[in-house]
Amino acid sequence: MALLSDISWEAFQALSPDAKVPYFRDADREQHVIVAQQFDRARLDALGDLATRIRRIAKTHAGMDDLQSLLSHKRAMLYFSQPSTRTFLSFCAACEILGLKLGEVRDTSISSEFKGETQDDSIRTFSSYFDLIIMRSQIGGLAERSAWLLSNSERPIPVINAGSGKDQHPTQALLDIYTLQRSFETNGGIDGKRVVFVGDLKRGRTVRSLSVLLTQYRDVEQCFVAPDALQIGEDIQAILRARGVRFSLSDDLRAELPAADAVYMTRVQNEWDTTSGESARIDISAFCFGEAELPLLKPSAVILHPLPRREEIATAVDHSPHAVYWRQMRNGMWIRAALIATLFRKDNPIREYFESNGIE
Amino acid sequence: MALLSDISWEAFQALSPDAKVPYFRDADREQHVIVAQQFDRARLDALGDLATRIRRIAKTHAGMDDLQSLLSHKRAMLYFSQPSTRTFLSFCAACEILGLKLGEVRDTSISSEFKGETQDDSIRTFSSYFDLIIMRSQIGGLAERSAWLLSNSERPIPVINAGSGKDQHPTQALLDIYTLQRSFETNGGIDGKRVVFVGDLKRGRTVRSLSVLLTQYRDVEQCFVAPDALQIGEDIQAILRARGVRFSLSDDLRAELPAADAVYMTRVQNEWDTTSGESARIDISAFCFGEAELPLLKPSAVILHPLPRREEIATAVDHSPHAVYWRQMRNGMWIRAALIATLFRKDNPIREYFESNGIE
Amino acid sequence: MALLSDISWEAFQALSPDAKVPYFRDADREQHVIVAQQFDRARLDALGDLATRIRRIAKTHAGMDDLQSLLSHKRAMLYFSQPSTRTFLSFCAACEILGLKLGEVRDTSISSEFKGETQDDSIRTFSSYFDLIIMRSQIGGLAERSAWLLSNSERPIPVINAGSGKDQHPTQALLDIYTLQRSFETNGGIDGKRVVFVGDLKRGRTVRSLSVLLTQYRDVEQCFVAPDALQIGEDIQAILRARGVRFSLSDDLRAELPAADAVYMTRVQNEWDTTSGESARIDISAFCFGEAELPLLKPSAVILHPLPRREEIATAVDHSPHAVYWRQMRNGMWIRAALIATLFRKDNPIREYFESNGIE
Repeated sequence: MALLSDISWEAFQALSPDAKVPYFRDADREQHVIVAQQFDRARLDALGDLATRIRRIAKTHAGMDDLQSLLSHKRAMLYFSQPSTRTFLSFCAACEILGLKLGEVRDTSISSEFKGETQDDSIRTFSSYFDLIIMRSQIGGLAERSAWLLSNSERPIPVINAGSGKDQHPTQALLDIYTLQRSFETNGGIDGKRVVFVGDLKRGRTVRSLSVLLTQYRDVEQCFVAPDALQIGEDIQAILRARGVRFSLSDDLRAELPAADAVYMTRVQNEWDTTSGESARIDISAFCFGEAELPLLKPSAVILHPLPRREEIATAVDHSPHAVYWRQMRNGMWIRAALIATLFRKDNPIREYFESNGIE
Repeated sequence: MALLSDISWEAFQALSPDAKVPYFRDADREQHVIVAQQFDRARLDALGDLATRIRRIAKTHAGMDDLQSLLSHKRAMLYFSQPSTRTFLSFCAACEILGLKLGEVRDTSISSEFKGETQDDSIRTFSSYFDLIIMRSQIGGLAERSAWLLSNSERPIPVINAGSGKDQHPTQALLDIYTLQRSFETNGGIDGKRVVFVGDLKRGRTVRSLSVLLTQYRDVEQCFVAPDALQIGEDIQAILRARGVRFSLSDDLRAELPAADAVYMTRVQNEWDTTSGESARIDISAFCFGEAELPLLKPSAVILHPLPRREEIATAVDHSPHAVYWRQMRNGMWIRAALIATLFRKDNPIREYFESNGIE
Repeated sequence: MALLSDISWEAFQALSPDAKVPYFRDADREQHVIVAQQFDRARLDALGDLATRIRRIAKTHAGMDDLQSLLSHKRAMLYFSQPSTRTFLSFCAACEILGLKLGEVRDTSISSEFKGETQDDSIRTFSSYFDLIIMRSQIGGLAERSAWLLSNSERPIPVINAGSGKDQHPTQALLDIYTLQRSFETNGGIDGKRVVFVGDLKRGRTVRSLSVLLTQYRDVEQCFVAPDALQIGEDIQAILRARGVRFSLSDDLRAELPAADAVYMTRVQNEWDTTSGESARIDISAFCFGEAELPLLKPSAVILHPLPRREEIATAVDHSPHAVYWRQMRNGMWIRAALIATLFRKDNPIREYFESNGIE
């Protein structure tokens, strides 16, 4: 068994991303949630199933009270040095559903207060008072470092990466998968579906994570629709090729819609521009979804978007039954609750509760 | 029945303020709390009665635990893009009394984070994770828009206006009414009383709302004491005239005190000055209440103030039995709890609990 | 009995620090926690004992649920106008352990919002909605003033000083004592031990408070190791002399380590520099603890630090069994929970629960 507490930081850092994955587990269960690659298909299926059970139990007052009793003895720290109200509130609600008490730091200016203290010491401080750290940071790799640090301390509490740097935002990928699972629940599941990604595919970390996670499903075909300058990276294409996944590149949205089972829209990520106004010079008008595009969809097709959106989806589309992006956001709350429950070994109790109470 | 989900935004906006009121209700119960005009006398009486029952139940540990179990399955979002610690904390406590879990955004700088996202999308985001949105904003009409938006979405959760723009702050008006109800509880109630408003009556939205709400009581006489430049608006006077309410204008505070049953003091609202220093040029020294004014009051008269205060009430007055402004602030917590309980149909359960437990 | 409600502010201010102490009590129990001097040895022993019981009860889910039921009907206000994430989170967790609901203000910019309102009125506002105020402020004496103010109001709720100005931070002193109690639990307790203080002893308020509190223990010897410019103040030395405590001054850390039972390291408090760069000119390299110093310690010796640390303790020392500073931080949470429980008269119920449940 690979344990973070058995390996030095230097040796751990030298590992490939895939070789790191087992270290985030403890006896084949997640100990920390750091990268999307941790989740193989069995885990994705189990999490989605658990999220649905939690969602259904939560429909009644009594069910919600019972959920809240599961982790009423635990406290979670939300450490958001990079602000994201959306992700923050989603985790906040997920914790509350399970009864965790909260503490939070989401003021970036707080850093000045810790002047002279290392990031490591700040993380250990938080671990002194809480049983779970959910963290978001502009610094790539900080969640990974924190996981290693705490696993090598006297308080080896779990760390959940709520977004770190440009690279990883694993719970966003989980909620995307869960939304696809729910969308195709009565339609054969994700296997065999055609997913069309649209927009800024080069820099959207959600697209990159989701694309790789989808390789775990059988016969999923991926289509990347973007202007040349924002097309999906060569690295992702290489992974898809290596795994024998059928995929195509396109710059014609309307041509790709009729065959799509899911359309994953994204906004231009101009916050990652390396030169000022870089994104503004790209014409994305052909990569927007409006009312005119709705009739092109199959009846069963769904439209996703990680939000926030700008002009790439017209608000008129919101009321279409194809639009699932608002439900997608709420799915984030359920899948995060499922994840936290799993970390604290409350997945089986929830499944048993569900069965023994005959919940539908 | 008028339903927000049956009317377009354009058609709704074209309605008069009074015609909008039924749309904030659902089956004759408040669905949203947006404007003070929603509350007719029956509602004001019911809310005050409920607030008192909550306050009395809350006196014991067991009672408080039972109150907290009422909405333990619900989560409230406090969205304060215009800061007001006072109102924020009051709602925070009100929610906690009823067991609601909280999420909050009260950093104005957060807006930059949502750059490119519409206000509508932000509100829908919040609605994804919570069961109630309590919002305060510098933007007039935003609460109304949010109520319409959510009533036309898949998650039609209630919105409470905690202050929007210059115009509306309905829960402040409710707590003022509740304070008068309590003050005259053993003295015939609000009917027939003489209320003297003092200070910046032109711009104080609490005075404007309270003055109109008081027209629902029988034979209440209103007296407005202010320097000319800050006297009550013509629009309010027109409403009072139309409703046949006796009122008078004055600039002599001491002359009006002996007949007053309630004195409602206010501070100069210089934050609404349109030219710099506008308020500073007005001499308000004659509109302040000090120890010297206390002997002028009837024994049963009460002094209210929405707070914060500046120099318009001397701190020496705080210890007088006439001063009820600190209790008034605490009343805000109870009336807000009553309001939230009513929105979630917990008013009758609270009344029944009160009766069946023989609480005094 | 001395009661804050029986004395004017002017008369109270004229008292000596020691003469003020009885006023923070009510019937021989703490009513407010304002200064470290409030805690005599009996109180320190009782608090430490209670903290340990809470800590042990908290080890199980059922125990934690029972703790949380103790003050589930109370709400605490965390008013941190001077930010300190560490102390904030510690109190936050302490409150959550006892079931208190929380409200918070920790934005220093909030002050602008209260423009024109006195500090007194802000405190009374907070007291309107909460049952306990935990406050931290840059302003010396503000906690004391608030305690007096509330004891003279209709809502005489307790105030806990979480740090005010340069002078007082009583709960830090309590956690230091508790850490020493635990460290010497099976080793005769604090009596007769030798405590070596190292670093910026001139300006470190934790050292100053702890040094004085230690005079309540029998035969504790104190040694102050610092560069001349940062040596312990004459005022503290005078107190030690007056109480017949053996102490010594030194500038040779390595020479003092072999006889030490506890080494209390501190960082240079350059935030209190009166001239720019004042601290930077002092060479503190000889007052740092690294791996090379570890072998000099007795096997039973412990190293404390109030944290945050800079270079004065090497991170390599963290893994030594001598290092107790991370546990010390967590002790802060337990001792604060014990303190709050005591304020609300839940100390005896906790002791009884502990006994009757046979907790170890």
